[in-house]
Amino acid sequence: MNDILQTGAVIGILGGGQLGRMLAIAASRLGLKTHIFEPGADCPASHVAWKTTTASYDDSAALRAFAESVDVITYEFENIPTSALDLLESLRPVRPNRRALAISQDRIAEKDFLTGLGLTCAPYATVQTMDDLAAAMAKVGTPAILKTTRLGYDGKGQARIMSPQDAPEALASMQGAASVLEGFVNFEREVSVIAARGLDGSVAAYDPGENVHRSGILHTTTIPARLSPSLRSDAVLVAARILNALDYVGVMGVELFVTPQGLLVNEIAPRVHNSGHWTQNGCAVDQFEQHIRAVAGWPLGDGSRHSDVVMENLIGADMDRVPALARETGTALHLYGKAEAKTGRKMGHVNRVTQRKG
Amino acid sequence: MNDILQTGAVIGILGGGQLGRMLAIAASRLGLKTHIFEPGADCPASHVAWKTTTASYDDSAALRAFAESVDVITYEFENIPTSALDLLESLRPVRPNRRALAISQDRIAEKDFLTGLGLTCAPYATVQTMDDLAAAMAKVGTPAILKTTRLGYDGKGQARIMSPQDAPEALASMQGAASVLEGFVNFEREVSVIAARGLDGSVAAYDPGENVHRSGILHTTTIPARLSPSLRSDAVLVAARILNALDYVGVMGVELFVTPQGLLVNEIAPRVHNSGHWTQNGCAVDQFEQHIRAVAGWPLGDGSRHSDVVMENLIGADMDRVPALARETGTALHLYGKAEAKTGRKMGHVNRVTQRKG
Repeated sequence: MNDILQTGAVIGILGGGQLGRMLAIAASRLGLKTHIFEPGADCPASHVAWKTTTASYDDSAALRAFAESVDVITYEFENIPTSALDLLESLRPVRPNRRALAISQDRIAEKDFLTGLGLTCAPYATVQTMDDLAAAMAKVGTPAILKTTRLGYDGKGQARIMSPQDAPEALASMQGAASVLEGFVNFEREVSVIAARGLDGSVAAYDPGENVHRSGILHTTTIPARLSPSLRSDAVLVAARILNALDYVGVMGVELFVTPQGLLVNEIAPRVHNSGHWTQNGCAVDQFEQHIRAVAGWPLGDGSRHSDVVMENLIGADMDRVPALARETGTALHLYGKAEAKTGRKMGHVNRVTQRKG
Repeated sequence: MNDILQTGAVIGILGGGQLGRMLAIAASRLGLKTHIFEPGADCPASHVAWKTTTASYDDSAALRAFAESVDVITYEFENIPTSALDLLESLRPVRPNRRALAISQDRIAEKDFLTGLGLTCAPYATVQTMDDLAAAMAKVGTPAILKTTRLGYDGKGQARIMSPQDAPEALASMQGAASVLEGFVNFEREVSVIAARGLDGSVAAYDPGENVHRSGILHTTTIPARLSPSLRSDAVLVAARILNALDYVGVMGVELFVTPQGLLVNEIAPRVHNSGHWTQNGCAVDQFEQHIRAVAGWPLGDGSRHSDVVMENLIGADMDRVPALARETGTALHLYGKAEAKTGRKMGHVNRVTQRKG
């Protein structure tokens, strides 16, 4: 019980975007303060946080002062530089733990970990040279996607290979970085499970949502997803297996493809996830509070769904629709306070709430 | 449309308690920043506000700087000193308007206003001298309650008069302040209507809740209240009449007694109200966001009830129950981040959510 953070304790959050903002709001409901660490000025989370440190991840004095002012550290994104993590971990608990971060930072490590658990991923093979790529195409077939192993901050580092003749150009675009070739998956739909694991090892999962993307960005999540009862419980069990194997503490987003052969794990994210935003208006305890509960050592809350929800992201010029959305029935707005509505930028989301059916 | 505050605009809030805190959170959902003005240090709202000014209401330089940093000013309590209001009003719009504040600061003005609208209050009479008090007792009868006309910050200034022989002591306890004698009301229950009026004059009301007090402090609000359909619409119409008569902008709490003769207005509060906290987990748009929408010139949101709720206040030592409450099904916690759990102090509340029946 000593691990439970009490009123007035401080959660440190690495990253000050919209996820950090909504984590800060959730922490306040539990009487907890938040301190944001973020290189960018006037970040969304700073508007609702107790304190904000604006500094870069190589400023060790700033990192040290940040860590010493908080009780526990969590994060809203997975690409935290290793050197920063080394320093922070030496001063305060960092949750979720480093193994989850390491795996999600490296596509090969992630796929090896998942398949090692007996879970199914898209066929994949490691690629460094042209010979590797030829062997990889022989293994996973074409069409396929070549991706750098390490995630870039900018979302770059992907090339489609529709047929073997695309291979040289695709490999060149990797600029010598270690890469992975992923086979195309013929899936019926993408669903995601937002699952949480507490410091006491208990696991809870929200009802799976069904995701639709546009231009590579999540467009809508609909809850409940169209899933048979057996696939629904499979999806939750897959998530639970991943969390337990990592001795994970916090919320994780697990993206799954539904295929004729069953579920296939697309990607995991060791943090609150865009496809879990519906929980803000569909559950007594949302994904943000669930994450804060976990990292603060609290018991997990009740994430059962009281309402059906369709979450829609507001991207860039979608902000022009806000006046109309503000008048809609059963619609909850969540804006992120970002000054400029750039193309492709996530500016907010709406949750459209209806009575739970079934 | 020029009056609609856009992303990045700043709402100034006078008062940094739990109501200011929850207003700040609601404002963030609309992309708005908040600046709190509060004399006390480390106030609950400061943990989630963009900025906080810690200064007294007679610090005109601080008031001026505060007003100049915001786009509109609202408040979480009604006892704002007149001199502060004079200065603030000269610099920025203050919503709700001054008339609502003036009326709610003076029990006689409030009762005269309400009865002037044709609404029913408990019988009352103004008292300054012993002769007035004798005449007042003849008019309203005993038992009755003698109260100072102006509200005190400390909740003092009330004396029960069970029979005429209690009169001299009761009058002495008023210490010469203008007072009002209120007759006892034989009511079946107390309900409250949380209503809102937008800058465009539109009015919306939440479903009435039923209030139970303990030791003079709100204990629970249960939604829906036990009210016949006709009394329910009467309650909403009473609130709408009050808001329209005051050309009100914002959320108001209207406390009503249900008597065999119909509804009787107990008290109005020109602000978000403790008996409206259930809306956080029962509606797509809660009372805090509805208030921010109104003062920011936005359209009012959908306040229809999607779930039934019982709100329970957590007072003082109720904080010891938090670990158990955190494990309850269907229960949403809302803690205020107050360091000391003093007797009688509002520390938080829980909303117990169940499926809507009827």
